[in-house]
Amino acid sequence: MSEAPARKTYTHRVRVGYVDTDLAGVVHHSTYLRYLEAARVEFLRHHGVDFRLLEQEGHLAMPVVEVELRYKLPAHFDDQLGLETWVGRLTRARLRFDTHIWCEGKLLTEAQIMLCCIDMATGRPRVLPDMIHSACV
Amino acid sequence: MSEAPARKTYTHRVRVGYVDTDLAGVVHHSTYLRYLEAARVEFLRHHGVDFRLLEQEGHLAMPVVEVELRYKLPAHFDDQLGLETWVGRLTRARLRFDTHIWCEGKLLTEAQIMLCCIDMATGRPRVLPDMIHSACV
Amino acid sequence: MSEAPARKTYTHRVRVGYVDTDLAGVVHHSTYLRYLEAARVEFLRHHGVDFRLLEQEGHLAMPVVEVELRYKLPAHFDDQLGLETWVGRLTRARLRFDTHIWCEGKLLTEAQIMLCCIDMATGRPRVLPDMIHSACV
Amino acid sequence: MSEAPARKTYTHRVRVGYVDTDLAGVVHHSTYLRYLEAARVEFLRHHGVDFRLLEQEGHLAMPVVEVELRYKLPAHFDDQLGLETWVGRLTRARLRFDTHIWCEGKLLTEAQIMLCCIDMATGRPRVLPDMIHSACV
Repeated sequence: MSEAPARKTYTHRVRVGYVDTDLAGVVHHSTYLRYLEAARVEFLRHHGVDFRLLEQEGHLAMPVVEVELRYKLPAHFDDQLGLETWVGRLTRARLRFDTHIWCEGKLLTEAQIMLCCIDMATGRPRVLPDMIHSACV
Repeated sequence: MSEAPARKTYTHRVRVGYVDTDLAGVVHHSTYLRYLEAARVEFLRHHGVDFRLLEQEGHLAMPVVEVELRYKLPAHFDDQLGLETWVGRLTRARLRFDTHIWCEGKLLTEAQIMLCCIDMATGRPRVLPDMIHSACV
Repeated sequence: MSEAPARKTYTHRVRVGYVDTDLAGVVHHSTYLRYLEAARVEFLRHHGVDFRLLEQEGHLAMPVVEVELRYKLPAHFDDQLGLETWVGRLTRARLRFDTHIWCEGKLLTEAQIMLCCIDMATGRPRVLPDMIHSACV
Repeated sequence: MSEAPARKTYTHRVRVGYVDTDLAGVVHHSTYLRYLEAARVEFLRHHGVDFRLLEQEGHLAMPVVEVELRYKLPAHFDDQLGLETWVGRLTRARLRFDTHIWCEGKLLTEAQIMLCCIDMATGRPRVLPDMIHSACV
């Protein structure tokens, strides 16, 4: 009997910058979308997909279509965060990256970011490149 | 027989900046959180609440705890956007602002942003100030 | 005897956002480049030049090549700033926008932003469009 | 006869994000101020100064008072940049970080960022902490 395959993950490290904070002394809620984007690019690189080449050679773009974020604990200047990322859902045309953002063993933020795939020239929806399917699951 | 009271709304206008765009030629998905924050501050101002004073005099902060965004159509440099905002949900301790982002009669993005209220010094949860309740509904 | 012509100026108004601040409680120094960019676009619009059309129809871009900023006093959340802008220098190929950023009668920041003009396709330098010359001085 | 001591430098590595670009397809000029701030923090860490502790324990802040940037060549999404940083000038009250931003052996941008030191509570100027002097030169 075979076991369920381990899900592919990658943990991207980020150092919180001064500019990332706001007058409340914590990381501004918008900053995490920047961190999460980098985490997705590094997840793909780690699993063999060069996102820049994918877009350029495939004449495609992968815009974000849905975002869900749950902020549980704040992050602070100079904290080192770990963004643990995996593919939470994958269909022919859509790809959802799920991320847990950790700091010193505590879960700060949960994120689900849904992307689709469009033709760069026409803007019309396309199926995801095969490379995404083979790399992500 | 009384009718349901009209819900309070406010439409904040934003001009898309060059910096707000990315190499795909459209507004980057993270930019909307900036626009939405300004829309909430202006909603409150329009309905009689000075958010800066509220925080300073109340020794409180109102951090974002949940974000849901649905991107339907892209915005472009120099577009004039209208952010139509209302309070979608209000409890003793939480406040959800709902926003529709429009451009030339088209709905670009839907957002739900949940805030809570904390004590600035201790970081502990507090009930929302009465002023919020009276202003928002 | 003719007098020197009055220099063309335009004052763009900006409301400081929460996201624009950092943990020191003041506007982060990088934020001003965003404000200044909007001030240049509005200066041009006020003097008859639609920057988006200029770039699109002229197949050109106007990248920033030099920045000088002097920060004298900090700005704070919800401040209303006035960005008084004029063309400080104009040659065949380069255009420098000078800006004074004011808040309640006090000069907060001085900026000089030099732009050049390049062909969008080749990236090579071009002379500035005539429209810029006639609009700016 | 003694030789001039080698100047202390540190090269901070940055990966260009999608969000860092604009519709012209290159890194937006404001983005570099973010990169440069991280480069200063890492320069100090490399030379033994924890900037977060310095501010917190010293009850001080080190705001940017002058910025000079010269952009020579553009950077693109996913480029790996090297920010080579050193202290270009150091007086009792002011500290200037100079940085060359490199990509694949080409000099993209030159920066000079002048900081001063203020008391966090009063906002008044202070002399720089001794630790800065010993660490930087």
